[in-house]
Amino acid sequence: MDFLGFNILDTFWVLFCAFLVFFMNLGFASVEAGFARSKNTVNILSKNFIVFAVSSLGFLFLGWGLMFGSDAGFVGTQNLWILGKSTEALEGIYGGTLTDQIPFWAKFFFQLVFCGTAATIVSGAVAERIKYIAFIIFSLILTLVIYPIVGHWIWGGGWLAKLGFSDFAGDTVVHSVGGWAALAGVIVLGPRIGKYTKNKKTGKTKANAIPGHNMSLAVIGLFVLWLGWFGFNPGSTLTFSNTSDVAHVVMTTNTAAIAAVLTSTITAWIIIGKPDLGMTVNGCLAGLVAITGGAQAVSVLSSFIIGLIAGVIVVLFVILFDKLKIDDPVGATSVHLGCGIFGTICIGLFAEKGVSSLNSVESGFNGLFFGGGVHQLGIQLLGIVVVGAFTFGSTLLVWFILKKTMGIRVSRKEEVEGLDIGEHGNRAYPNFAEQPEVIDDGEVAEITGITEPSETVSVSDTSTKGAKLTKVTIIANQARFGKLQSALEEIGITGITVTSVQGYGQQKGNTEYYRGAPVESKLLPKVKVDVVVSKIPTELLVGTVQKALHTGNIGDGKIFIYDVEDVVKVRTGESGYAALQDE
Amino acid sequence: MDFLGFNILDTFWVLFCAFLVFFMNLGFASVEAGFARSKNTVNILSKNFIVFAVSSLGFLFLGWGLMFGSDAGFVGTQNLWILGKSTEALEGIYGGTLTDQIPFWAKFFFQLVFCGTAATIVSGAVAERIKYIAFIIFSLILTLVIYPIVGHWIWGGGWLAKLGFSDFAGDTVVHSVGGWAALAGVIVLGPRIGKYTKNKKTGKTKANAIPGHNMSLAVIGLFVLWLGWFGFNPGSTLTFSNTSDVAHVVMTTNTAAIAAVLTSTITAWIIIGKPDLGMTVNGCLAGLVAITGGAQAVSVLSSFIIGLIAGVIVVLFVILFDKLKIDDPVGATSVHLGCGIFGTICIGLFAEKGVSSLNSVESGFNGLFFGGGVHQLGIQLLGIVVVGAFTFGSTLLVWFILKKTMGIRVSRKEEVEGLDIGEHGNRAYPNFAEQPEVIDDGEVAEITGITEPSETVSVSDTSTKGAKLTKVTIIANQARFGKLQSALEEIGITGITVTSVQGYGQQKGNTEYYRGAPVESKLLPKVKVDVVVSKIPTELLVGTVQKALHTGNIGDGKIFIYDVEDVVKVRTGESGYAALQDE
Amino acid sequence: MDFLGFNILDTFWVLFCAFLVFFMNLGFASVEAGFARSKNTVNILSKNFIVFAVSSLGFLFLGWGLMFGSDAGFVGTQNLWILGKSTEALEGIYGGTLTDQIPFWAKFFFQLVFCGTAATIVSGAVAERIKYIAFIIFSLILTLVIYPIVGHWIWGGGWLAKLGFSDFAGDTVVHSVGGWAALAGVIVLGPRIGKYTKNKKTGKTKANAIPGHNMSLAVIGLFVLWLGWFGFNPGSTLTFSNTSDVAHVVMTTNTAAIAAVLTSTITAWIIIGKPDLGMTVNGCLAGLVAITGGAQAVSVLSSFIIGLIAGVIVVLFVILFDKLKIDDPVGATSVHLGCGIFGTICIGLFAEKGVSSLNSVESGFNGLFFGGGVHQLGIQLLGIVVVGAFTFGSTLLVWFILKKTMGIRVSRKEEVEGLDIGEHGNRAYPNFAEQPEVIDDGEVAEITGITEPSETVSVSDTSTKGAKLTKVTIIANQARFGKLQSALEEIGITGITVTSVQGYGQQKGNTEYYRGAPVESKLLPKVKVDVVVSKIPTELLVGTVQKALHTGNIGDGKIFIYDVEDVVKVRTGESGYAALQDE
Repeated sequence: MDFLGFNILDTFWVLFCAFLVFFMNLGFASVEAGFARSKNTVNILSKNFIVFAVSSLGFLFLGWGLMFGSDAGFVGTQNLWILGKSTEALEGIYGGTLTDQIPFWAKFFFQLVFCGTAATIVSGAVAERIKYIAFIIFSLILTLVIYPIVGHWIWGGGWLAKLGFSDFAGDTVVHSVGGWAALAGVIVLGPRIGKYTKNKKTGKTKANAIPGHNMSLAVIGLFVLWLGWFGFNPGSTLTFSNTSDVAHVVMTTNTAAIAAVLTSTITAWIIIGKPDLGMTVNGCLAGLVAITGGAQAVSVLSSFIIGLIAGVIVVLFVILFDKLKIDDPVGATSVHLGCGIFGTICIGLFAEKGVSSLNSVESGFNGLFFGGGVHQLGIQLLGIVVVGAFTFGSTLLVWFILKKTMGIRVSRKEEVEGLDIGEHGNRAYPNFAEQPEVIDDGEVAEITGITEPSETVSVSDTSTKGAKLTKVTIIANQARFGKLQSALEEIGITGITVTSVQGYGQQKGNTEYYRGAPVESKLLPKVKVDVVVSKIPTELLVGTVQKALHTGNIGDGKIFIYDVEDVVKVRTGESGYAALQDE
Repeated sequence: MDFLGFNILDTFWVLFCAFLVFFMNLGFASVEAGFARSKNTVNILSKNFIVFAVSSLGFLFLGWGLMFGSDAGFVGTQNLWILGKSTEALEGIYGGTLTDQIPFWAKFFFQLVFCGTAATIVSGAVAERIKYIAFIIFSLILTLVIYPIVGHWIWGGGWLAKLGFSDFAGDTVVHSVGGWAALAGVIVLGPRIGKYTKNKKTGKTKANAIPGHNMSLAVIGLFVLWLGWFGFNPGSTLTFSNTSDVAHVVMTTNTAAIAAVLTSTITAWIIIGKPDLGMTVNGCLAGLVAITGGAQAVSVLSSFIIGLIAGVIVVLFVILFDKLKIDDPVGATSVHLGCGIFGTICIGLFAEKGVSSLNSVESGFNGLFFGGGVHQLGIQLLGIVVVGAFTFGSTLLVWFILKKTMGIRVSRKEEVEGLDIGEHGNRAYPNFAEQPEVIDDGEVAEITGITEPSETVSVSDTSTKGAKLTKVTIIANQARFGKLQSALEEIGITGITVTSVQGYGQQKGNTEYYRGAPVESKLLPKVKVDVVVSKIPTELLVGTVQKALHTGNIGDGKIFIYDVEDVVKVRTGESGYAALQDE
Repeated sequence: MDFLGFNILDTFWVLFCAFLVFFMNLGFASVEAGFARSKNTVNILSKNFIVFAVSSLGFLFLGWGLMFGSDAGFVGTQNLWILGKSTEALEGIYGGTLTDQIPFWAKFFFQLVFCGTAATIVSGAVAERIKYIAFIIFSLILTLVIYPIVGHWIWGGGWLAKLGFSDFAGDTVVHSVGGWAALAGVIVLGPRIGKYTKNKKTGKTKANAIPGHNMSLAVIGLFVLWLGWFGFNPGSTLTFSNTSDVAHVVMTTNTAAIAAVLTSTITAWIIIGKPDLGMTVNGCLAGLVAITGGAQAVSVLSSFIIGLIAGVIVVLFVILFDKLKIDDPVGATSVHLGCGIFGTICIGLFAEKGVSSLNSVESGFNGLFFGGGVHQLGIQLLGIVVVGAFTFGSTLLVWFILKKTMGIRVSRKEEVEGLDIGEHGNRAYPNFAEQPEVIDDGEVAEITGITEPSETVSVSDTSTKGAKLTKVTIIANQARFGKLQSALEEIGITGITVTSVQGYGQQKGNTEYYRGAPVESKLLPKVKVDVVVSKIPTELLVGTVQKALHTGNIGDGKIFIYDVEDVVKVRTGESGYAALQDE
């Protein structure tokens, strides 16, 4: 106790945990950026950075008041505006909320970082195509109004709390709310260009993998998040007066995580055939989310089982969402929504009286598996449904209104080139050479006046040893490479060499900025494709390339034709015409 | 209390905060490395790494004694040498300084990490051209003598402290001292090659952006610094006996930061037209620096306002310093010096009695805006001026002496190639292909015997469809690419393809080392430029290239000339001569 | 005290330190990944990620029981299975072990993160060639049985503890055990392909440097480890009841680290000629390891001396191990084994009664240098020898059995291509262009029917100005580049241009996966080498290339031959034949 009557150690503990949860901002930024392509890195980092500022603003201006302003059923209605009130006044008003033991601003900061987490979950799911300004406005609305309302129901003494809904550290309040908002965003936004492609022949749609650019960054993020969770869950005791409780929550948290790491790795290994690191990362987070709601209410053994299951279902969720064409680049919906719901249910299944004083023999409850019947499970399910309906519905509405008014998606050109250029005008890794991406940007060629390549030509041409060898070098927009590659394959080109180059012609480079000063570069990333042909006529090849690349805009590229003296295939020693033929 | 009479929780708190501040070493290393080019990464990481070791040495050997050795006006004079004294003896001597509640080594370690911060601020500003050894020696002198003297004046019971100068967590002691030392270094060093270039025609000097190589790394650093600030400011209470005080400082710190994130982003958006991530990073740090001095003395609302202003002015400072040709690659002077001064002034403006027990109604003071008049503001301004004069003057002298004796700047060749090769002999990212940099290394061609390209030739040449097409491939030193590009533009070349390659000819590669073993590589990074011409005569082109690349040294490059059969412009379908002409 | 009689602050302290030590998982992952090549990044991250999960499993299922299950001399034998026991039961059984002050799960978690550290040390040493599944199984056995047995001897009340062996935070228990296990693994595995090569002429074997791919990542890891050490050592007090003790351990830990940073940098500077960052990183860790065992028992001044020595010897260890062909990519054996032993010895040398209550005047001991004679030193040496024999022997056996049953090393092809492809099917940095590695994969060409290049041909060819110029472009497997380069040098080619490209021909690309979805890419990384010759006959060149590249497998590459019109050497202005000749 300090001389004002606050508990010193509880305050220290809550602030310490709040710092750890604050640090999860870095974790989210790193995982999300690592799981996205390099061309969108600045955008993702910017989003994860500003979202905490925006959340702080929203929670400071109105959110806290709505969440804790009174114990009315639906929403707090009193003392909404806290900024500008003196600390003394705030202690007078809010001294009785949460625990009496810690000063107001410590309580506030702890709640703030949780609010920020909910908002940042959205960021990853909508990555790689959302407008920066639309995301900022959405985050403000989420933390100003929507999150506080749900938070009030469960943590602010609202109707679900009164009903006995249990959500220790926020499986529903934080993870599901973030997850529902993310799902709504993904649906309204639609998938990224090139994520789902239709096979022209079979007519079937295929989900393409779009690999993240930096697994080191993703793993840095994962460990930072895991560390942060030791603030998230144990800190939700809001006191250190019972050391066993804290130690218990630390152990259930860690045990669920490690169990899920193991099963997600094994599940991926079985399904995919290899231990996919991305799945292990998602699995670890799944275990952590799944235990968040009931970390104080279940035994260590139960936490192990919950983790084991979470690690399996998150892999299935990722695959399912992909099948449903819910394009979530980082798996936020699978992790936070899927396992947030799963964890909320687990409370009703695995809760065990007496495992900690927070689910004590006297006043606690048992879940279905421990003789508690379906009562608690029913309340949990009700909470899941109502929070889901409210959050999904309201965020869907917000996304929809934003879409209709200001627009929420960047232009096709910006998306293909990367949001870093279009939205921010600077790139994350300007010193590194990047690989051309195999993406079909979906733009239809509007070419006219080019003779349709006739496939019969190539067949009739059964040249011999002395046949002319020609090298065709194509300089093209990186975004058209996928289309070019398919076109070349269709006419039987089986060998190409691809080089990542920079080029400029008449096309003006983008104006990039860096810390205020314009970066003067007319060089644009281009792809160079070299093909050497003999059997396939040069005209067919050139016509095919033109058709694949033509959009009518400056920057469509050039085709260069050279004579080749000879070519040797190393493996067989064949030369000339023969060296170019497949067996 | 433990049995020796120390306060357990205060000690825990101070050590906890010291660990967070220690961790800021990673933050500085990451932000600075991220904001610099990849070719200088090893150097920057090394500097940020060793600077803490050197600071520890300096502070352990003499610094602590000078700072806290007695409460003499100018500098501590007693018990200067602490290493070797027993802990008991140190408790006897220093038990009365700072707070009595915590053991000596805890106090020492807390002060040490602050000292290390001041030194590491310098590192970023002088990056990309300073000699490693010169930086090490400067850091030692700074932490051995200069920082402790200023620290003594303000925190060690010296004359400014006696006058009532207020600087809670070190806006002047840490940030301004680091900032002044950085400014002096930048001035003595001069700008990086290629940062300011003179336009030959207009005669005007232009500030070029030199983008940082890794924004992910910079953002990792930012979040680590932000986390560290929760040790820096709240820890400066040096006690946890008043929970409200700590919670208050946490909130003012965070609120200033988020406010500055918002305004710096908006300011950059307005001025540059895009939300520049580098500016947001600088903005966040600006808010944190600006609140550091008065975090305990101003209200949360005032911290919000201070942050709002800091976010704006830091952007203006960055632009101003660029205009003044103060080349600070990471914005250290803008953030730490600019906002350190601003924050010190804010104490005199926004301080409000009663916001915490550290600025209590009984013994605290009000700033100008809260009825306190100009008294405190005057003291603050006096402190700013005197500390500025002393620190800037003394560090300028140290830099100047170092320059005249051992030299402080690497050679032109080392700077252009990167300090990682020249200073450390190993590269940060050897597995990645790097982009040629558009830099003009300023070396003057000493070419003789080459016919001056006559521009009339190209104009008179109005060739037709069947004109000969020639490809010229240039293999050149990456450092000459900027010059080459300009030269090509001048003779009317509007289309080039640039490839990052590795090559060797007669030129011996650098000997690189990695953990003790030599890296045997004769391959050097080179740039390959392909140009296809028809109208412009090959001789003109070759002569121009020679002139642009020639330095007379081995490694000047080669020019290869090939015949081209045909070229097709995709957009228009034109071929041959026509395909190469702009509209 | 809480109402159950546990000490609140001690519990907080122990959990706080455990979180810091947990965070060292990120530190190890980052340092190890940074010190390895980019093509093995996913594998290293995966190993460091799953090893903590596996360790947790091992320690939870059996390890804890063996270590602390009773104070029998050799191993704990009672209450081995703790999972499933109620917390109350566990408190009843284990309440007396370690300190009585903190709840069971807090003790367990603290011990768990130490156990995890021992396992993760192995990861770096066996990096870049170990099978993922073999590493997982080894880690399980290490943490399930081997580590707990040694731990029992020293920390669990076993025979070495009874003898008076002193190892405060685990120089022997953690670092040496991890180091011995790593050494055994390295020996059984053998060196990486290309690490040691025999010069055909001199017959001498040379150790080649294989530079790590990301020094930024390594330095991130270093600082995280350093931070973690403030939990590792000070946390080993297991109580905060004596503030001076904790502060003392913080200072000895930091002081040894900074001293070793300085001397390792200087030693590398002297021996190599440049301040090698990798050595500074190893040096810092060496200082931290060296002080780990005696941080509570030696003075701050002694810690400074210990650090100074550690910084020197770690550099020598790295060089020595390289000479002994012990191929440890990250220096884990030098740091953890070498300095773990050194630190354990230092306890017997530098211990000083009265420096802290943990080595008090009443019950502590003095080392050899402080009048304590050789008694303690003898015990320390006995412990080193016995733990070394047991750990090295048992882990050697485990590695050997694994090798004979499932195999522990990936195939030659997987190692050359990178474990990320072979073991995990996904790459860490798919968006970045990577440099071809100069590695000789050791595969012998099985080429037949190609005329042996006759070196006399090239000598007899003394062509003149008008000689034909030919460009030969080679597209080859990156793994064969080292061989190709040597072959070209042997026939007198002194100028080549190397480009990192992607290509496909008949060769099927690897199927990569990313978070469950297959990445459809037929593009494989290839290297393109351009050579322009005049004097050297094209047939000789082509034959030489064929011989160097031929393996008989699909993907051996192609050779293209073009005519060159002219070539100009920029420095001299020479053209044609003359431009290609060296002086």
